[in-house]
Amino acid sequence: MFITMKKIRMGMVGGGQGAFIGAVHRIAAFLDGEIELVCGAFSSNPQRSIESGKALYLPEHRCYDSYQEMILCEEKLPEEMRMEFVVIVTPNHLHFPVAKMAIEHGFHVLSDKPATISLDEALRLKQLLEKHDQLYGLTQTYTGYPLIKQARHLIATGELGNIVKVVVEYSQGWLASKEDETSKQASWRLDEKQSGISCCMGDIGVHAANLAEYVSGLNMAELCADITSTVAGRTLDDDGTVLLKFSNGAKGVLLASQVALGDENNLKLRVYGDRKSVEWSQLESNTLWLKSNTEATQMIRAGVGDLCAAAKQAMRTPAGHPEGYLEAFANIYSNFAKQIRAKNAGEVCDNQLFDVPGIEQAVRGMAFIENVVQASASNEKWHPFSLKSDSNMGEE
Amino acid sequence: MFITMKKIRMGMVGGGQGAFIGAVHRIAAFLDGEIELVCGAFSSNPQRSIESGKALYLPEHRCYDSYQEMILCEEKLPEEMRMEFVVIVTPNHLHFPVAKMAIEHGFHVLSDKPATISLDEALRLKQLLEKHDQLYGLTQTYTGYPLIKQARHLIATGELGNIVKVVVEYSQGWLASKEDETSKQASWRLDEKQSGISCCMGDIGVHAANLAEYVSGLNMAELCADITSTVAGRTLDDDGTVLLKFSNGAKGVLLASQVALGDENNLKLRVYGDRKSVEWSQLESNTLWLKSNTEATQMIRAGVGDLCAAAKQAMRTPAGHPEGYLEAFANIYSNFAKQIRAKNAGEVCDNQLFDVPGIEQAVRGMAFIENVVQASASNEKWHPFSLKSDSNMGEE
Amino acid sequence: MFITMKKIRMGMVGGGQGAFIGAVHRIAAFLDGEIELVCGAFSSNPQRSIESGKALYLPEHRCYDSYQEMILCEEKLPEEMRMEFVVIVTPNHLHFPVAKMAIEHGFHVLSDKPATISLDEALRLKQLLEKHDQLYGLTQTYTGYPLIKQARHLIATGELGNIVKVVVEYSQGWLASKEDETSKQASWRLDEKQSGISCCMGDIGVHAANLAEYVSGLNMAELCADITSTVAGRTLDDDGTVLLKFSNGAKGVLLASQVALGDENNLKLRVYGDRKSVEWSQLESNTLWLKSNTEATQMIRAGVGDLCAAAKQAMRTPAGHPEGYLEAFANIYSNFAKQIRAKNAGEVCDNQLFDVPGIEQAVRGMAFIENVVQASASNEKWHPFSLKSDSNMGEE
Amino acid sequence: MFITMKKIRMGMVGGGQGAFIGAVHRIAAFLDGEIELVCGAFSSNPQRSIESGKALYLPEHRCYDSYQEMILCEEKLPEEMRMEFVVIVTPNHLHFPVAKMAIEHGFHVLSDKPATISLDEALRLKQLLEKHDQLYGLTQTYTGYPLIKQARHLIATGELGNIVKVVVEYSQGWLASKEDETSKQASWRLDEKQSGISCCMGDIGVHAANLAEYVSGLNMAELCADITSTVAGRTLDDDGTVLLKFSNGAKGVLLASQVALGDENNLKLRVYGDRKSVEWSQLESNTLWLKSNTEATQMIRAGVGDLCAAAKQAMRTPAGHPEGYLEAFANIYSNFAKQIRAKNAGEVCDNQLFDVPGIEQAVRGMAFIENVVQASASNEKWHPFSLKSDSNMGEE
Repeated sequence: MFITMKKIRMGMVGGGQGAFIGAVHRIAAFLDGEIELVCGAFSSNPQRSIESGKALYLPEHRCYDSYQEMILCEEKLPEEMRMEFVVIVTPNHLHFPVAKMAIEHGFHVLSDKPATISLDEALRLKQLLEKHDQLYGLTQTYTGYPLIKQARHLIATGELGNIVKVVVEYSQGWLASKEDETSKQASWRLDEKQSGISCCMGDIGVHAANLAEYVSGLNMAELCADITSTVAGRTLDDDGTVLLKFSNGAKGVLLASQVALGDENNLKLRVYGDRKSVEWSQLESNTLWLKSNTEATQMIRAGVGDLCAAAKQAMRTPAGHPEGYLEAFANIYSNFAKQIRAKNAGEVCDNQLFDVPGIEQAVRGMAFIENVVQASASNEKWHPFSLKSDSNMGEE
Repeated sequence: MFITMKKIRMGMVGGGQGAFIGAVHRIAAFLDGEIELVCGAFSSNPQRSIESGKALYLPEHRCYDSYQEMILCEEKLPEEMRMEFVVIVTPNHLHFPVAKMAIEHGFHVLSDKPATISLDEALRLKQLLEKHDQLYGLTQTYTGYPLIKQARHLIATGELGNIVKVVVEYSQGWLASKEDETSKQASWRLDEKQSGISCCMGDIGVHAANLAEYVSGLNMAELCADITSTVAGRTLDDDGTVLLKFSNGAKGVLLASQVALGDENNLKLRVYGDRKSVEWSQLESNTLWLKSNTEATQMIRAGVGDLCAAAKQAMRTPAGHPEGYLEAFANIYSNFAKQIRAKNAGEVCDNQLFDVPGIEQAVRGMAFIENVVQASASNEKWHPFSLKSDSNMGEE
Repeated sequence: MFITMKKIRMGMVGGGQGAFIGAVHRIAAFLDGEIELVCGAFSSNPQRSIESGKALYLPEHRCYDSYQEMILCEEKLPEEMRMEFVVIVTPNHLHFPVAKMAIEHGFHVLSDKPATISLDEALRLKQLLEKHDQLYGLTQTYTGYPLIKQARHLIATGELGNIVKVVVEYSQGWLASKEDETSKQASWRLDEKQSGISCCMGDIGVHAANLAEYVSGLNMAELCADITSTVAGRTLDDDGTVLLKFSNGAKGVLLASQVALGDENNLKLRVYGDRKSVEWSQLESNTLWLKSNTEATQMIRAGVGDLCAAAKQAMRTPAGHPEGYLEAFANIYSNFAKQIRAKNAGEVCDNQLFDVPGIEQAVRGMAFIENVVQASASNEKWHPFSLKSDSNMGEE
Repeated sequence: MFITMKKIRMGMVGGGQGAFIGAVHRIAAFLDGEIELVCGAFSSNPQRSIESGKALYLPEHRCYDSYQEMILCEEKLPEEMRMEFVVIVTPNHLHFPVAKMAIEHGFHVLSDKPATISLDEALRLKQLLEKHDQLYGLTQTYTGYPLIKQARHLIATGELGNIVKVVVEYSQGWLASKEDETSKQASWRLDEKQSGISCCMGDIGVHAANLAEYVSGLNMAELCADITSTVAGRTLDDDGTVLLKFSNGAKGVLLASQVALGDENNLKLRVYGDRKSVEWSQLESNTLWLKSNTEATQMIRAGVGDLCAAAKQAMRTPAGHPEGYLEAFANIYSNFAKQIRAKNAGEVCDNQLFDVPGIEQAVRGMAFIENVVQASASNEKWHPFSLKSDSNMGEE
C-alpha cells in the first residue's frame, strides 16, 4: 500500500517582508524539499503579517496576528495538519518568550541566535526543556558547513594531536559609520532593549565562539576581553578582542568587528595542534587546509576524497559545484527535520551525524556574551568563564 | 478580500532516485519557495518512478509510469491543479520527444542541456515553438550567476571597449580513467545513442560556448577544432580545444576536458576588450575581476557596491554569505517562474531582467556540438559556424 | 675626465658558514651591485671566520679573528680602501657591543634586529649616536616591501580616513616541537643569554610591532599582553598576543607565534580607517588590497598604475615579475648605501624616499619587547607603553 | 696556504642605461656574489656605453665602444683578469653575431632569448659550438624556478603517470594599444629587423613552449597555429594560440598574448597525467599544486618538505620568505658559473643538478617560432614540428 509521506510542518515567528534573516531561514527550510511552511506570525503589525503570509502562499487563516495567537490556534488544529515546530526569527528580546510558549504548548523550537537576550533567560530555557519533551535547535549557521564538520572530525580523531592554539576571527564592516545605523538590521542590533548587552559580541562574536568550541572540542575556561564602541554615540560594542584559555590549557584569540571597513562576512578559524593544524575561511567555504611543518599542505575540498560521514551527508553536489551559506543553513534545518521525523517515528536519531546546535550551545553562547562584557569592564586581566547568571538560580 | 496565491506547479521527467541532476533541479526549483513539484515520471522503470515520487512527498496517482502518461493525465486535471510546466532531466536522447509532446499538449518546458540529441532536433523544436504559445527554457546553469550577469552588463555598456579576445575553459577530471566509466552519469554520456555525437563538447563544451557568447554578446563565426578520445576504448571525445573567430573579428579559445585529472568543475571565462578585461571562475563565483593596464584591478564582489539590476535580483544574501551553483541554478528556475506568472497574468515579463536561456541558445548549442565534431574530423583549419543541419530543412 | 666611481664598502660581523641570516644580508647587499664586501669577522672561531671569508672571495688579511680586530685594523687602512660600514648579523647579545665599538671608531652601522639585547642597551646606543656623526640602520626587513610603502603612503595622505583598528599577525611553525630546538637558529633564540628576555616577541613580534607603527603612522600607547611558552621545558615565550591602544585611540591586536604548526612566515597586516582599509600579506607581497564598504576592492599590484615614489623606487622589474623577501631586504641596503653616499658627498639624502629604520625604531622595538614581557607577567590588564628602562637613565 | 678565490668574470653586450633586461641580468649575476662584471659594450652609442659602464663602477678602459672591440681587447688581457664569459642582452638580431665572435675568440656565452633571429642562425650556432669548446647558455628564465624543477622531477619520476595533456599560457597586456608601442622595449620587438618574424611568439610564446617541454619531458611533434596582429597597423603578431601534439601522443594547447589587457606576466603551466596532475603559476611561483581525483590536492611550497635536489639547491631562504623572478634568473647565472668553474678546474659538472638551457633549447625555440608562423599562414590544420630551416643545411 502506498502511504503518502508528509513534509515536516513549520510555523514562523518574525521574518515579515523586508527582514533579512527570515528570508534566509525560509530558503534554508525549503531547499531540500523536506519542510513546508504552514503558518506564521510574521510581524507585530497584523496587516504586515498577513501580507507577508500571502506572499508566501499561505491561506489567510494561518497568517496570525501574534505568536500567541499562532501557538494557541495551531494547537487546536488536527495533528496531521498543525505545525510541528516553530522557527523564531525575531530580534533577540523575543526569542525566549516565543520559545517558552511554544515549548509549553508542545511544539519543537528552532531559534535564531543568540538564544535569548540574557544568560538568565538561557538558563531558564534550559530548565524548561528539562521538563518538556520538545526538541530545541539553535541556528549557529556556520556549524552547518561540511568542511567545518570535517575539521571537527580531524581533531576529534587525533589527526592534529594536542590542540595548543585556536584563532578565530569574525570581521564585518557594515556598521563602520553613523550612516550605517539607519537600516532595520542595524537599528535593533544597536538597541540594548532588543539586542541585549552587546551588539558585536552578541551578533557575531557568539558565532565565532561557538565555532571555536565546536571544531576544537574544547571549552573556554578563562578569558580577557577588550570591547569597544568605535563609532561615536554608540552604547553597545561594535568591535572587540578576547584572549582565551581553553579547558586543556590551549590559548586562544577571538577577534570580532563590525567596523572592519571593507570586510564582508569574514569568519576565519585556525586550530593548531602539536602535530598538524587546520585553517578554514567562510568566504572560501569549500576548502579546508590541513597543514604540517614537514609535508605539503593538503587542500581538502568539499566533494573530493574520503571525508567523514557528517561532512559527506552535508553536501548535495559533486566537487566543484560550490555550495555556500544557504546550504550550510539548510543543513541545520535538514538535520532538525531528521530529528523530528525520528522522534515522530519513535526512532533514535544519530545526533552525531545529524547534529543540530542545542540548549548547551545556547547557554554557552549567552554566557560568552555576558562574560566578555563583564571582563572587558574590569581592569583585571583574566576571568573564569562562568555559566552562572547573577540574577538566576539556574546552575549547570 | 484575501486571495490565496499559488506556487507554480512543476512536473518532472527523469530524476529518479540515484540521479544527480534531477536532485539538483529540485533544489533549484524549491529554493525560493515559488515552485512546487506536483507530479513526475521519474524513471522508465514504473516501480522506481513511484518510489521516487513517494520519497518526494507526492501522492501515488501523480507518480506516473511514463512521460506520455503524465502529459495525458495531467492535461485532464482541473487547470488550477495540473502541472504548468515540465522539467526534463533525462539523458539527452529523450529531451526532444518529451519537450515536443509537452509543448503540443499545452505545457511549458524547462529542459536540461544540451537541448536535444542533434542539431536537427533542435531546429525542429524551434519550428514547433513558433507554432505554439508555450515557454521554453534551457538550464544553461552558469548564466544564472549574478556576476556573470554583471560581466555581461559591463561589456554591453561598453566598459571593456571593443572585444578582441575571449578565452573560456571548462575542465573536469572525473572521466580520466577507464574505471570512471561505470557510474550512471558516465555510462550514458559515453553512449552515443543516449548522449549524441559528443561527450565532452556535448556535456560541458556546450556550457563554455554558451557562456562565452552570453557574456561577450558576440556570436561565433568560424572555428577550428581538435577533439580527442583520450582514454582507450572510447568512441566519443573526452577532451578538446576549439579556436574561434567571433562575428566582430575577435579571436577566441575554448578548452574543454573531462580527463583533466584533479580538476573539479573548473569553468573559467576571460573576455579582453581594448579598454578593460574581465575574468571569472566558477569555483570562486562571487568574485569578478575587472582589469586594466593602468589602474588597480577591481575585485567586484557579489553584494558589494553598485551592480546591475539583473545581478542584484539574482542574489539572496548580503555580501560575504557565499551563494553558489545551486543558487545560480535556482535563478533560472526563479526567472522561468516569473515568466510563467507574467504569462498567466497576461503581463509582459522583463526578459532582460529575468532572462532564461531559450530556443536560440538551444539551437546554437547543438550547432556548436555538430560544428566542432565536423571541424575536428577535417584537416582544413577553419570552418564557418553553421546553423544548418545536414538532415533538416530548418533555417534561421 | 673619467673618474671611476666606487661601490660602498661593507664589513660583516657574524654570518659565517651555516648561518642563515648572514647569507641573506649578503644577497641583499650584493643584489643591486652598489655594495661590496671588503672584510669580515664571520665567526667567534677564527678558523671558521677565515674559511667563511675565503668562500666569499676575500683576501686573507681581511678575514679577521674578532670584530675588535676588524674595527681596529680597518681603521688603519687608507680611507679609500677601508670598510665604510659594519653590518652586524650575530645573535642579539653582540649587537650592542659591536655597534658601540664601530660607531666609536668612525664606522656606520647596519644592524640586524632586534637592535640590542635590552631596552637599556638601546637607550645607551641612542645616546651614543647623538654624540657621533655616524649613520645607524636597523634591518626591519618588512618595511622594505614596495607595497608596504604604498600602504603607508595611502594612510599618510588620508585615503583611509581616521585609523580605528590595526590587526597585525606574524605566525610561524618552525619551533612547534621539542625536536625543532636543535638547529643553530633555534638554540640561540631560546637561550636568554644570547637572545634576551623573549624569543617569539623578540624575534618576530618586534617585526609585527614595527610594521604596524610604520604603516599606520601611529605609536602604541597602551598594551595588554599574554605570552606563552607552549612547548614544555622552554623558559622563553614561543607564542603570544598583545592587545593595543594607539596614540590616537585606535585599538589594535598583535598576534605572534612560532608554534603555529604549518605556518611558514605568515606576516599579515590590516589597517582599518573610517573611510577605507588596507590588507597585506607577506606571502603575497606584491598585492595590496584597498577596501571600502561601497566600492569594489582594489587589488593594487606592484608595478601597476600610479604608486607613490617610495614604492616605485623600491621595485626593479615591471609588473608580474614577482620580487620578494630578498628584494625587500635589498631595499634597506640600497637606501642605506644612498644615505652613506650622500653623506660622503656632503649632500642631503631624501630620507623619506630612501628611508631606513633607525635608532628610534631600535628603541621602540626594544621597549615593545620589554613592555610585553612585563605586561604579560601582570594580572592588571592595561599598561602604558613605556620607553624607560628600569636600569637606565636614558629618556626620550 | 691561503689562496684567494676569485669570482667568475663577466662582460656584457647591451644593457645600457634605460634598458630593462640588462639591469635584470646584472641583478641575477650579482645576487649570489659569485660573478663580477668586469667590462661591457653596453650600447651601440659609445658615449652611452661609457656612461653606463661608469655607473656600474667599471674603469674607463673596460667600457668598450663595440662588442667587437670588447672581444678583441679582452682577449689580449692577462688570463686572470680578462672576462670569462659574455652575456648578450641586445635585441634579437645581434644575438648570433655577438655569440659567434665571442665563441670564436674563446669566450663562453650566456644569451638572452630567443637565441637568434632565425632558425637558420640557431642551426649555424649549433654547428659552431660543435667545433669549439665553449659553454653556451640561454636564459629561459622560467626554468630557473625551484618548483618548476620540482614539477619536472615529479613527472620524470613517474608521479603523474603517462602525460595526456599540457596546457601552457603566457598572457601579458602591455602591447594592448597603439600608444604602448612607443617604449624602447616595444619598438624593437615590433620591428621585424630587430625582432625576427614574430613578436608575441618570439618574445613570450618561446618561453611557454620551452617551459612545456622542459617540465613535461616531451617534445612537440605536430602543431596547428593561429596568430594574430590584433592592434591595427602591426605587421608582427601580438597574440596567438597553438594546438599541439607531443611525441608521446599527448595533446597540448599553448596560448600567448601581449594584448591580454590587465594581465601582467601571466605564465601558467598545467600538465595532466593519467595518475596525477600539476599546476603552476609564475605569479605565485612558490606554490606548486599536485592534484589527483581521489585525494586532497597537495600545495607544495618552496622550502617545505622533501623537494628534489635541483629544487632545493635553487632556493636561498627558508619557507615563507618569497623568492621570485630575479632569484629564478639568478639560478641560471649561478648554474652557469658553476659550469664554468668546473670546466676551469677540469672537473665534471652535474648538469642535471645545475642545469642551464643550452643550444638544444636554442634550436628548438627558434624552430617553434618559425613553425608557428608558417603553420598559422596555412589553412591546413596540422603541421609537423620541423627542425629544418629552409635556408640552411644544418640538421639535427
